Formats: sequence, structure tokens, C-alpha cells
Amino acid sequence: MREIKVERLLINYKTLEDFKQFQAYGLQELSMLDDLKNNLVENDSESPFYGIYYGSTLVARMSLYERSAKFDDYFDPPQDYLVLWKLEVLPEYRGNNYARLLVDYAKSFNLPIKTNPFIDSHGFWDYMGFEKASYNMERDLGENPYIWMPKGVKQI
Amino acid sequence: MREIKVERLLINYKTLEDFKQFQAYGLQELSMLDDLKNNLVENDSESPFYGIYYGSTLVARMSLYERSAKFDDYFDPPQDYLVLWKLEVLPEYRGNNYARLLVDYAKSFNLPIKTNPFIDSHGFWDYMGFEKASYNMERDLGENPYIWMPKGVKQI
Repeated sequence: MREIKVERLLINYKTLEDFKQFQAYGLQELSMLDDLKNNLVENDSESPFYGIYYGSTLVARMSLYERSAKFDDYFDPPQDYLVLWKLEVLPEYRGNNYARLLVDYAKSFNLPIKTNPFIDSHGFWDYMGFEKASYNMERDLGENPYIWMPKGVKQI
Repeated sequence: MREIKVERLLINYKTLEDFKQFQAYGLQELSMLDDLKNNLVENDSESPFYGIYYGSTLVARMSLYERSAKFDDYFDPPQDYLVLWKLEVLPEYRGNNYARLLVDYAKSFNLPIKTNPFIDSHGFWDYMGFEKASYNMERDLGENPYIWMPKGVKQI
């Protein structure tokens, strides 16, 4: 049986080429590619992405970034928290719980998590124990903020 | 010939029902509906949305919110700017320049504009005179920030 595990993705030309298979490929990836080309980041340095390989194929990924308590507008008491984005599994690899593995990995840091899911993926986030944040237009604008909180943490 | 114009959308049950036709319907709209039901906002008060009606059908919309210079991380000199989101034309009404009319309307305020387009709509934003913001992960996370600047304004 093939071992399936979540790993930190390294910034190199292979990873950045792999990223092109994902629908949410955008300015973030283009900017990483520029930085690599211009030697502004080292080859094989750590990226903000975590992913799952099936053999040598990157089949799922997510991005995680730790925001400092200073910028926390979501949780009570204010604290360091993770922003999760670009969670995506390639279409032909769906149905294998890869998204669940990635989100469980994010939860293992035991920090609150905030994400902004596509509107049609809410069943998944509910299932993963996330809840809707109380919508605040000035803070959230066009986002659909969903949050997960370890024990002892509340929404603002 | 039918008159096509951009108008400020009013918060009432008809508007909120009309919104359900749009793909980006999310927590923002659900929260507006709750506020209306609980009399936290007045019926027919102004919403942050602008739209185009074809007869009595809402066929296109966008949301606009003015951020104060104090929160400006995009423009030089720092200044009040508009955040534009949920620009969308119902599928059967596309190809009539409605999206263009809405964005031109946003530009008519003569403030810089920031938006976070879907990755497959970049041709449209280029055509409308928007440019990619220099991607900054800490600021932009999973966004693809595109900006438009009136004369005399630069990117940070």
C-alpha cells in the first residue's frame, strides 16, 4: 500500500510546474516563480504550501500562513492564528479524503484557523468542524469566513 | 430601446431573493437577510451593491466599499480607495457589456480600485485598464489583487 502523507512543499521549478495543474493558480504562484528566477528565494526553500504526492505527482495542496495575534480580528482572546487558502485536490484524485488529511494537518498545530471557502464547499467545512464566522462587512468584504477553534477559543 | 443603467441596490426581500441567482451568493447575503428579518436594517435602505435591471430582473451586480486611507496598503500616496467584489452577470445576459458598465461606474468615483478577480477573468480586467498589484503574501494571501488607479496615483 502506498504511503500517503502531508508534506511541506519546497519552492523549486518542479513544484511551480506542478502548481499549474491547480485551478487556483494565480499571482501568488507567478510571484514565487519570478522570485526563484531572480534568485530572490533559494531553490528548495520552504513554501507556504503543504501537499500530498501520489508517486511523484502532486495531487492535493493547501496554503497556510500564521497571522500574529496583533492582526487577529476573529478570535477571543486575540491570538496567533492560521489562514488557510487554496485547498484543492486534482479532480481525478478526489474521493480519497486528501482534503480531509490536509485540513486535519492544519488543525494539528492547535491554533485557530480561518478560511474563505468556495460557496459550494460548505458541507465539507461543516463536516471538518468549522463554523461560519459572524459576517462583518468592513472586515470580510466578499469573503465567506469559516473558522475552526481549538478548545477555549471563541469568536469575537 | 430599453434603458440600461447602473443603480444602487436597496436592501429588501426582492433584492435578496434576486441575489440567489448569482453564483457568489454567500455569508454576506445571508447576513443581510438576517439583519432585515431582525429589523437591524431598514427595508429599502442602501446596500453596498450596484446592479443592472433588465425589466424587473436583476441581471448584473457588483459590490463596492470605500476603505479609508488609514487602511491603504496598496497605493502611493495612501488614500481612500474602493474595494470591488462579486462582479457578476447572469449567464444568459452575458455579452452585453454589463460588466463593463458596472466597472466604468466604479471608476467614475475617481478613486483607486482594488479587486480580487477569478483567475480566468484577467483578460477582462486588463481590458478595463486594471493591472496586477505586486503580490505580497502577508497582505494578499490567496488573493489575486488587481488595481486601477486614477492619474497621479501609483502602486506602493
